[in-house]
Amino acid sequence: MKVLGYQAQAPGAPLQRQPLTRRDLRADDVAVRVTFCGVCHSDLHAWHTPVEDGGVFPLVPGHEFVGEVTAVGQEVTAFAVGDAVAVGNIVDSCGKCSMCRVGQENFCEEFPTLTYGGTDRHGDDGPTQGAYSSAYVVRDRFVYHRPANLDPAGVAPLMCAGITVWEPLRRWQVGPGTRVGVVGLGGLGHLAVKFAHALGAEVTVFTTSEGKADDARTLGADHVVISTDEQAMHGQRNRFALILDLIPTAHDLTPYLNCVGLDGTLCSLGHLGPVTVETTALLIGRKSLSSAGSGGRAHTQEMLDFCGAHGITADVEVLPSAQVHTALERLARGDVRYRFALDLSDL
Amino acid sequence: MKVLGYQAQAPGAPLQRQPLTRRDLRADDVAVRVTFCGVCHSDLHAWHTPVEDGGVFPLVPGHEFVGEVTAVGQEVTAFAVGDAVAVGNIVDSCGKCSMCRVGQENFCEEFPTLTYGGTDRHGDDGPTQGAYSSAYVVRDRFVYHRPANLDPAGVAPLMCAGITVWEPLRRWQVGPGTRVGVVGLGGLGHLAVKFAHALGAEVTVFTTSEGKADDARTLGADHVVISTDEQAMHGQRNRFALILDLIPTAHDLTPYLNCVGLDGTLCSLGHLGPVTVETTALLIGRKSLSSAGSGGRAHTQEMLDFCGAHGITADVEVLPSAQVHTALERLARGDVRYRFALDLSDL
Repeated sequence: MKVLGYQAQAPGAPLQRQPLTRRDLRADDVAVRVTFCGVCHSDLHAWHTPVEDGGVFPLVPGHEFVGEVTAVGQEVTAFAVGDAVAVGNIVDSCGKCSMCRVGQENFCEEFPTLTYGGTDRHGDDGPTQGAYSSAYVVRDRFVYHRPANLDPAGVAPLMCAGITVWEPLRRWQVGPGTRVGVVGLGGLGHLAVKFAHALGAEVTVFTTSEGKADDARTLGADHVVISTDEQAMHGQRNRFALILDLIPTAHDLTPYLNCVGLDGTLCSLGHLGPVTVETTALLIGRKSLSSAGSGGRAHTQEMLDFCGAHGITADVEVLPSAQVHTALERLARGDVRYRFALDLSDL
Repeated sequence: MKVLGYQAQAPGAPLQRQPLTRRDLRADDVAVRVTFCGVCHSDLHAWHTPVEDGGVFPLVPGHEFVGEVTAVGQEVTAFAVGDAVAVGNIVDSCGKCSMCRVGQENFCEEFPTLTYGGTDRHGDDGPTQGAYSSAYVVRDRFVYHRPANLDPAGVAPLMCAGITVWEPLRRWQVGPGTRVGVVGLGGLGHLAVKFAHALGAEVTVFTTSEGKADDARTLGADHVVISTDEQAMHGQRNRFALILDLIPTAHDLTPYLNCVGLDGTLCSLGHLGPVTVETTALLIGRKSLSSAGSGGRAHTQEMLDFCGAHGITADVEVLPSAQVHTALERLARGDVRYRFALDLSDL
């Protein structure tokens, strides 16, 4: 199957529009005409990762996308041609391990197959190629029904940014009256605020930027705390059941652990890498430091259904696919509120 | 009130038997004739801490003790002369903060008054002096009824070592069938095994020492894993709802985080200080790193009642009080199974 995509041949090399081959449909495959794909920090990271550090090339980025079904394999029953669908950053898993069995395919003990830069479990040659592309072929289990009432471009980022904040909100049972903190108001943060607000939580946004206070309230925040204001931070100590820390760089976790309440959790989602904490910052108040990433199949569909019911989408700036470099460059300098979606229907 | 105690005048100086003065009873005070006091690692630490690092002298150590009530203040109703009681490492708290109001006086936002080296909240001169002593005077709220069926010497260590492992077992709802890991079989660890077993959990002890395997099983462990055996450790990955890490020195947490299962917790209780973890070790499986220390009033009485119902005490080696240095020196080199109790009835 011949399609088009934006592919880089080496780290940092231009993403060039060129023909790609997708596999012929297996019995459980779904072919999707991609219409919109979100632009994630991971895309930027993958594009710039040297091969010796795990970079995988050639690379077509893109792992949060929507589209319509154009063909299905002979055993596919859950989808039909024309269905409105969405796909995220996982396209397969072993299905047998303890994590897969409980619906956390994202933590598959044999490692899930990633939407790009992954290794197909059935031996197809080369790394998986992402959704900055006109079409994608994906196993049916990792395709989701997309609520018809939602703007498609705004649904795309739900599939990575959205599910990444949805899972911890659900795991820590955020509901009416739960005090939730959101640190950092970007692609993930703005969705965390919308979700937590819709779940009935009392939402506080921590930000360094006074300029984001109005935005935060518009998105659903009840309170805004300027995190550089020590007195304001002191006033928040021991208050939160859950704080989602979405800061994408290394930073001191202590100020946020101090804000977590008895038996509460600081969930670090923004920065991967080693983190150092003082044991006493966990001990006093019996607090937990945790993390999470992506989501299982059942939770992903649950999130989409919740968004459909509450009219929630990501706030996106849509760019024509030919402006893929503009999107990545502006994302790199934080110039987006709150997510780019590439329009791939123009391919 | 003149009593006797073992007091050091400076860091590392001998603990000398000498007269001490306890305060006259306030309306809500209880006077306790100390009979047995456990010897905790904290005692050793306090004894060796330079003043510039927070050491408080003169020092009478001892914060896990039992005895009988010899007098009560005029407003005390919960205790009477002759009552069998126990006292732990906290003897007062503010009673008003968010932590105190929910029964976690150990996390008092104004800091709890420690049994030794603490500052009395009513302005008594000098630091509080601990229970390596013939008698102690303590606010009634921090005195506990001690089950009459339990060996008093074996109850003493429940008041610090015991409650420190009891609280996390309860907070993480350990019950029938819960898979619990205990890393390190010492003063805290042997009680963790007894408690978890009595709560119905499936208990695995992680130890570097083959020689402790039989002891572990005798205490109630279902399984023993030699933590230096990489293959055995690999077989434990993603299995535990809760692992209590009681290793008293800095060490790599990753091997134990790997054993924690989906949404499970590694609770670090043994080592205070900075700890570094890889975010991905938390992310994959959405695991938590936590800690805890000591316990609130309600939980402490609950633990004692549980021990009474299940016939649980610490395994103690009782030494005459004059052998206090022997106890501390042997504790320093790990030569005790599993806790020393000083017999202070001889004072």
